[in-house]
Amino acid sequence: MSYTLQTRVDGEFDDVVSETTDALEDEGFGVLCDIDVQETLKRKLDEDFRRYRILGACNPGLAHRGLEDDLDLGTLLPCNVVVYDADDGVVVSAVDPQRLIGVADNDDLDPIGDDALERFERVLERL
Amino acid sequence: MSYTLQTRVDGEFDDVVSETTDALEDEGFGVLCDIDVQETLKRKLDEDFRRYRILGACNPGLAHRGLEDDLDLGTLLPCNVVVYDADDGVVVSAVDPQRLIGVADNDDLDPIGDDALERFERVLERL
Repeated sequence: MSYTLQTRVDGEFDDVVSETTDALEDEGFGVLCDIDVQETLKRKLDEDFRRYRILGACNPGLAHRGLEDDLDLGTLLPCNVVVYDADDGVVVSAVDPQRLIGVADNDDLDPIGDDALERFERVLERL
Repeated sequence: MSYTLQTRVDGEFDDVVSETTDALEDEGFGVLCDIDVQETLKRKLDEDFRRYRILGACNPGLAHRGLEDDLDLGTLLPCNVVVYDADDGVVVSAVDPQRLIGVADNDDLDPIGDDALERFERVLERL
């Protein structure tokens, strides 16, 4: 069973990043963290890597509910959506929030994972 | 079984954040992402929350090895260390990298989780 939701998009890499960010915002997720993996691996290791961005997406309402229930949940937040170059287009891959939040092994958090998953599914459908 | 490694520190909140960042750097983790949860929840929801920072810690060598094996691993990176106010001091809580990487359900990644766990253990011991 995969731990991500994915879609492949035809388009320019930077445009896909922008469209993904916009779609996340429409579902109530702010991108609080944006890591350029290609640039980081070049700078730190002098390794050439494909274009690859990690967008840390946080829905403040869901995050607040989760943190009120489990203060350590921040160690699993935000939920990441990555965008990377593939041979046949640009891939957008989102962590499955149910699987991620499942690490906390707390049934009370299940509705939050369910809600986030539905939002991520809508984000990927839009791209 | 907990999904975090924790320690409680006596000290000023901002000093603990700085010391945690320094200790992470000494173990080869750059803080690529720093989310001020208190500020975010105030701004987005007008909710008052304790001081709480999410530090996204990335060891480029480990990340590169992991991404070469599983391109979607970026959805689980970086590994977070959170710092928050508690009644009796400041808590530093790091996600257990073995549990986090376990989401990918790929035995080939186990050595990376093991290595990151040992580094995080040394970071917390130093605080």
